Amino acid sequence: MRPPLDLAVDVVTLTEHLVDIESVSRNEQAIADAVEQSLQGVGHLTVTRHGNTVVARTDLGRGERVVIAGHLDTVPLNDNLPSRREGDLLHGLGTCDMKAGDAVILKIAATVPQPNRDVTFILYEAEEIDTAFNGLNLLSQSNPELLVGDFAILMEPSNGVVEAGCQGTLRAEVRTTGSRAHSARSWMGDNAIHKVAAVLARLDGYQARTPDIDGLTYHEGLNAVFVSGGVAGNVIPDECLVEVNFRYAPDRSEEEAESFVTDFFDGYDVRVTDNAPGARPGLDVPAAKAFVEAIGGEPNPKFGWTDVARFTSLGVPAVNYGPGDPLLAHRQDEHVPIAQIEDCERVLRAWLGGV
Amino acid sequence: MRPPLDLAVDVVTLTEHLVDIESVSRNEQAIADAVEQSLQGVGHLTVTRHGNTVVARTDLGRGERVVIAGHLDTVPLNDNLPSRREGDLLHGLGTCDMKAGDAVILKIAATVPQPNRDVTFILYEAEEIDTAFNGLNLLSQSNPELLVGDFAILMEPSNGVVEAGCQGTLRAEVRTTGSRAHSARSWMGDNAIHKVAAVLARLDGYQARTPDIDGLTYHEGLNAVFVSGGVAGNVIPDECLVEVNFRYAPDRSEEEAESFVTDFFDGYDVRVTDNAPGARPGLDVPAAKAFVEAIGGEPNPKFGWTDVARFTSLGVPAVNYGPGDPLLAHRQDEHVPIAQIEDCERVLRAWLGGV
Repeated sequence: MRPPLDLAVDVVTLTEHLVDIESVSRNEQAIADAVEQSLQGVGHLTVTRHGNTVVARTDLGRGERVVIAGHLDTVPLNDNLPSRREGDLLHGLGTCDMKAGDAVILKIAATVPQPNRDVTFILYEAEEIDTAFNGLNLLSQSNPELLVGDFAILMEPSNGVVEAGCQGTLRAEVRTTGSRAHSARSWMGDNAIHKVAAVLARLDGYQARTPDIDGLTYHEGLNAVFVSGGVAGNVIPDECLVEVNFRYAPDRSEEEAESFVTDFFDGYDVRVTDNAPGARPGLDVPAAKAFVEAIGGEPNPKFGWTDVARFTSLGVPAVNYGPGDPLLAHRQDEHVPIAQIEDCERVLRAWLGGV
Repeated sequence: MRPPLDLAVDVVTLTEHLVDIESVSRNEQAIADAVEQSLQGVGHLTVTRHGNTVVARTDLGRGERVVIAGHLDTVPLNDNLPSRREGDLLHGLGTCDMKAGDAVILKIAATVPQPNRDVTFILYEAEEIDTAFNGLNLLSQSNPELLVGDFAILMEPSNGVVEAGCQGTLRAEVRTTGSRAHSARSWMGDNAIHKVAAVLARLDGYQARTPDIDGLTYHEGLNAVFVSGGVAGNVIPDECLVEVNFRYAPDRSEEEAESFVTDFFDGYDVRVTDNAPGARPGLDVPAAKAFVEAIGGEPNPKFGWTDVARFTSLGVPAVNYGPGDPLLAHRQDEHVPIAQIEDCERVLRAWLGGV
């Protein structure tokens, strides 16, 4: 039996304990059990369990409710467990993305019994994989009332500053066709792979837009992420497929993003396979504005798609704010500066009126 | 039990019987058994078995020996068995490549007891797959004396005219590299797929050489046959691979072909993975010249690599000569004109001095 999670330890030790409970996506039962059990021991919280997602709420009748959320899963193991302290850093799978953030959530949940606004703490499963498994997505369907709030904070790694909004992401397939022939008589066929030269040259010449939105500068990107073609070593191929990923600033709608890509590849067979809209920073919303002011520092734009966009689509203004460098997420050598974990805990505690 | 193969039937019926014994590469036992058994009944032949390759020889002390060979295997089934006659055509898997040729070999073997030159008939396994399984290749290692001759005829489909020589074939990998990044921050990476644009553009601009060799016009070809790249849907790829196939005329050596490809892709990481030389037509060799004169008609160059090159490398002048259109080989709708089978049998019988 694993010893129960002790919320009385300091936030860095708690991060270590969370990291050392392996929780690759679809294997979150142990960590969700530990989190649930530890929160059940906190008198001022109402705790519910939904699959491997745990929700803990205060209900103090405050005029405002904030949702503070973190995912419990990690990307696959890469010979980077257990956790390991080295100087000012904590190393290991999930230290950055995002068990340091989860530890901050659990510490605040356990030790701020009278927050100045009601809080819904959510520790959820399966953020790193298909949205069909995403704990927040499932909760929005089964218990939408639990996601209601005036403001939401996702404690994804953001270097301890507010990252606002997020870019949209669209995937599309661009296909070229030709006709097969034996490669010994190649002139009788029409090589579909050769035709991809022009598709890739177009991509290579793409100029990224960097729009300013609500004071933040976004940066788009259009890239081939896969290419595949070929029938056999002695056959002129009749089809080639390029899969592209368009990351677009949140001033474009899904439809506008789709039009852009379709126009960009004018003359080719283009099929959009996936499209998730971004979220405008929304820093003009009073709750967000107040949070940014309380935290201090300059907010940054968020480039990667996060569940911020899910909250935005539910009508809840949301930002990312958490310890760790987002560029280290999903890397074999991911780590988090110990001071950032402690800073985040302190800042959040102060904002909620804790001591 | 399958009834024994009857060599007394006409050559077209015999082709049907051979086609109806399914013999996809590596599954030639049944057809080799039937062929061996039928030839054992022919008094003037010495029959030996080597794996699923059957060899039958006359030994009349003639001044000249000719090897006449055909492979027994076919490419995979494609809903094209059993055989089916329709008007002047015989349809089905292997009708063209090359059981019509095999039927001619068997009829000649059985019914020309006193050929004017000694003959080694070879019906062999696994021509359609990796050369490591090729029955002629295996025989050249285990019993090289059985391949000795003054001249060889491969009864591969050639529309009933002599096809001479064959082109070489070289495979190479051309690789581009870059550096990975999350596609949400694509500008921090270096997209290896985009770099393939220039590789494919170079291929698209390739101008084929069509040299004249010993009076026959060859036609080279340089093509991408596979392209692959990509790590994940949200990752800028750091590597992309283009596999090319160079079919080269027999006036280039293996080394010259390799130099050509390396120079063509100057500036890229090129690795040659396979290289099989071609064979010059060799129609100036007396035995070949005499055969062409006896057959009549204008000889054609052979574009595809065949076992003609293997005989050439063993010092045995060789040509392709058989019923069926080589362009129909490996096609779902392969078929052979009935008249071409009968013509080939008649021509070969006459050349061997049969009645």
